[in-house]
Amino acid sequence: MATDASGSEAETADAYAELVERFERINGVQGAAGVLGWDQQVMMPEGGTPARSKQLSVLSSLSHELLTDDRTAELLDEVESTDLDAEGEALVREARREFERANAVPTELVEEISETSTEALGAWEQARAEDDFEQFAPYLEELVELKREYAEHIDPDRDAYEVLFEDYEPCLPLSQAEDVLETLKETLVPMIDEIRQSDADVTTDAFDGEFPADGQEDLSRDVLSTLGYDWDRGRLDPSSHPFTSGNVYDCRVTTRYDESDPLGGLMATVHEFGHAFYNLGLPEEHFGTPLGESRDLSVHESQSRLWENHVGRSPAFWELVTPKFAERFDTDATAREAYESANQVYEDNLIRVEADELTYHLHIVIRFEIEKALISGELDVEDVPEVWNDKYEEYLGLRPETDANGCLQDIHWSHGNFGYFPTYSLGSVLASQLFNAAEDDIGNVYGAVREGDFEALQEWLRENVHEHGSRYETNELVREATGEDFTADYFVDYVTTKYGDLYDLEESV
Amino acid sequence: MATDASGSEAETADAYAELVERFERINGVQGAAGVLGWDQQVMMPEGGTPARSKQLSVLSSLSHELLTDDRTAELLDEVESTDLDAEGEALVREARREFERANAVPTELVEEISETSTEALGAWEQARAEDDFEQFAPYLEELVELKREYAEHIDPDRDAYEVLFEDYEPCLPLSQAEDVLETLKETLVPMIDEIRQSDADVTTDAFDGEFPADGQEDLSRDVLSTLGYDWDRGRLDPSSHPFTSGNVYDCRVTTRYDESDPLGGLMATVHEFGHAFYNLGLPEEHFGTPLGESRDLSVHESQSRLWENHVGRSPAFWELVTPKFAERFDTDATAREAYESANQVYEDNLIRVEADELTYHLHIVIRFEIEKALISGELDVEDVPEVWNDKYEEYLGLRPETDANGCLQDIHWSHGNFGYFPTYSLGSVLASQLFNAAEDDIGNVYGAVREGDFEALQEWLRENVHEHGSRYETNELVREATGEDFTADYFVDYVTTKYGDLYDLEESV
Repeated sequence: MATDASGSEAETADAYAELVERFERINGVQGAAGVLGWDQQVMMPEGGTPARSKQLSVLSSLSHELLTDDRTAELLDEVESTDLDAEGEALVREARREFERANAVPTELVEEISETSTEALGAWEQARAEDDFEQFAPYLEELVELKREYAEHIDPDRDAYEVLFEDYEPCLPLSQAEDVLETLKETLVPMIDEIRQSDADVTTDAFDGEFPADGQEDLSRDVLSTLGYDWDRGRLDPSSHPFTSGNVYDCRVTTRYDESDPLGGLMATVHEFGHAFYNLGLPEEHFGTPLGESRDLSVHESQSRLWENHVGRSPAFWELVTPKFAERFDTDATAREAYESANQVYEDNLIRVEADELTYHLHIVIRFEIEKALISGELDVEDVPEVWNDKYEEYLGLRPETDANGCLQDIHWSHGNFGYFPTYSLGSVLASQLFNAAEDDIGNVYGAVREGDFEALQEWLRENVHEHGSRYETNELVREATGEDFTADYFVDYVTTKYGDLYDLEESV
Repeated sequence: MATDASGSEAETADAYAELVERFERINGVQGAAGVLGWDQQVMMPEGGTPARSKQLSVLSSLSHELLTDDRTAELLDEVESTDLDAEGEALVREARREFERANAVPTELVEEISETSTEALGAWEQARAEDDFEQFAPYLEELVELKREYAEHIDPDRDAYEVLFEDYEPCLPLSQAEDVLETLKETLVPMIDEIRQSDADVTTDAFDGEFPADGQEDLSRDVLSTLGYDWDRGRLDPSSHPFTSGNVYDCRVTTRYDESDPLGGLMATVHEFGHAFYNLGLPEEHFGTPLGESRDLSVHESQSRLWENHVGRSPAFWELVTPKFAERFDTDATAREAYESANQVYEDNLIRVEADELTYHLHIVIRFEIEKALISGELDVEDVPEVWNDKYEEYLGLRPETDANGCLQDIHWSHGNFGYFPTYSLGSVLASQLFNAAEDDIGNVYGAVREGDFEALQEWLRENVHEHGSRYETNELVREATGEDFTADYFVDYVTTKYGDLYDLEESV
């Protein structure tokens, strides 16, 4: 505190410092929970669950208590009533938002949702295994009601689904997501239909065969190094569901090794690299404060999908990586064959997580339409399977024969996560827009990819996205980075050109 | 709460439940910190330190705040004023002790000690590397003063070293430790002198050669399985300093693989198994409460040393394990040769962590005498190197030529840990007493060891030590388990017989 500061200025400076310190504490607790979560999925022996559950629930309630404490409210009020610089304003904006959301919902309701989710998860697992939606239905119904109640606590005057969506995407209006998904539907439904009728000769078998796990691990490590993963601040481990966990000092990725599907594992590695590379590029000077956090799910997913799709599924990438395959495995696929196989459209696939870049978004559109109708009350839980199957028939020309391969396939609803799915598609769309802007700024990105030189792209992403942390809200971040408003145009151009070329479609060129 | 309980009984039941819940919360935070500590030493990439330090310091202050909160004091007062059953009394006794100690010392002093230790650690590392005690001396002096102050806050009327010793051994009087160490000195000084002059032909080279790390890991896993390690509740990883971390649901061990010293690694594995097997046998129904904790350092060390020394350095164990060596490595040592090599006395060794079962305790006696004199003020920090060297000459007949191999070899004092060293010797002594009682109760333990059958010994330790958690104080635990008071007699008998036989000493038989 400066000695010549007036009493009130000094007090404000103190309050600001105390607010920052409080959020650093909360972040410390949440960071600890993050490490425990990583350990649970990657290292923990099976028997460890009871102790781990207890540890995680204690950390979660401590961080909730610190966040919703009266002192947090006092400090926010005090700091907001004074002049702050732009960074200070951004920090307080983020802190206020986090506080309000946590404070609006009674702890009992949060706990009830958490307990119901735990039961729902068990019921969902069994229902899926036995292909019996009835077993899951009552839990889904309860979660829909609890989540409506949750939304009402936050804002009784707004559409409940809109409020829920903000849990994942707090600074992107739902209407934007709706527009994007509508565009994707209009573009992709006819395009996939055309692909189904195309007689283009696309290679699909470049990754057929046996690919031992240790060779896949070695390949993943090599590719991560090539992309620029900093091993001093990260590590790679196998896990059943690939994920990324960590902060600017220590951000770890996991992947999976299926010996008959080396492509799936490698693409997961590249995808998780995108997430990790974002976290590792966050502003160190703001570590632990709301400013040092990554922007929300769509921006995070834009980073993983930019690397997975725009880098990892490009011809240039396969020129770089095909020799790395040949070094480790008994395969003689050419770069072009590998590229085609990595981009084949699975027009008969019913499973979201096995989908390609095109059909993927129709899987999302279907979930989005259904969950919106569930929350608004237009759709009853009991009708979900039929509506699900009808929509698959309408948009993808496929009708699931079982609910296990239909509306029971995803874990999200059993967690009560309504409003999450759209962020996946928003991420893809934003990835296209950002990649296009990067190409405009640095030129010939694919020439460099072919050489294994990722420096310019890394630098562009760091400067235009990562280093800002939560300084800008999403739309502002996009404008600052690309000079334009958030748009699906680049994604539409990208898929039209790429798949038009691959499948000899009429719209292409 | 029973419906027919009177208001006051019901309130007491509530207070007891709230007290237990509070300690479960504290335990949850400390357990989380434990996982973070394990990760830091075993998994964390190098760059992760800044985030990890912050997370650990937040958890440490949260658990301190929960413990020293006024509400903890109120609950303790309320619960203590009522009738409790024996278990309840034990729980409150442990909770009260923990509260008093944490509450007595001002947070600022705790933080000052912690900060000084961090600086002292850096200074110690450099001083040791450069063999320059002067660089470490001022930090050691400051830590001695701070720790005297710390002891004064806890009890200004008692000897400061006695108070510090209780940080590690809260329910064993220092006078007992003094008696034990005096006995060890009187027994071992002449015995080692005699061994030095013995011309017995003890094999020392059974473990000479190259032993690849992967074979050592495989051997460690095999031996852990044979001893009865529950892999569903544990794991084995390499680390530079072997350690054990965890609770009844998830207790992990680490070991090290030095390719020219397979014995060191294997004995470390067996030692850590003893620690882990204790934690894995703690009473599950009291998990998270003070009753579910292990007894203190000497008891913990008794478990690791019982397995390391009484099992792992026995002829029977080497009959079991020598074939396991031969399966994996190019070695033709007999079981007897391996046994002798594993028990050779390193009478010229200056380093505590490389010492054998006999000389080890003289290393401890020297540290104990010096730290006691430092805390009382009888000895000045500047005189430590000379007194250290004099004592090595007097007790072990060796004079260190450098301080790096002398008074700078251990990390403990740089952490401000005065009073810790004696617990190592107490552990060895107690291991002998417990092993002897187990043998009396179950008979022919070594016959079973030879067959790889550890069930009876495991069961005995679980029933007599592990399952009690913190139910009994140390001396009561020893009496319950062995029917006798804590004594060094069994250790003296054990080493007299074993080394008398190995080195043809006169006292033997």
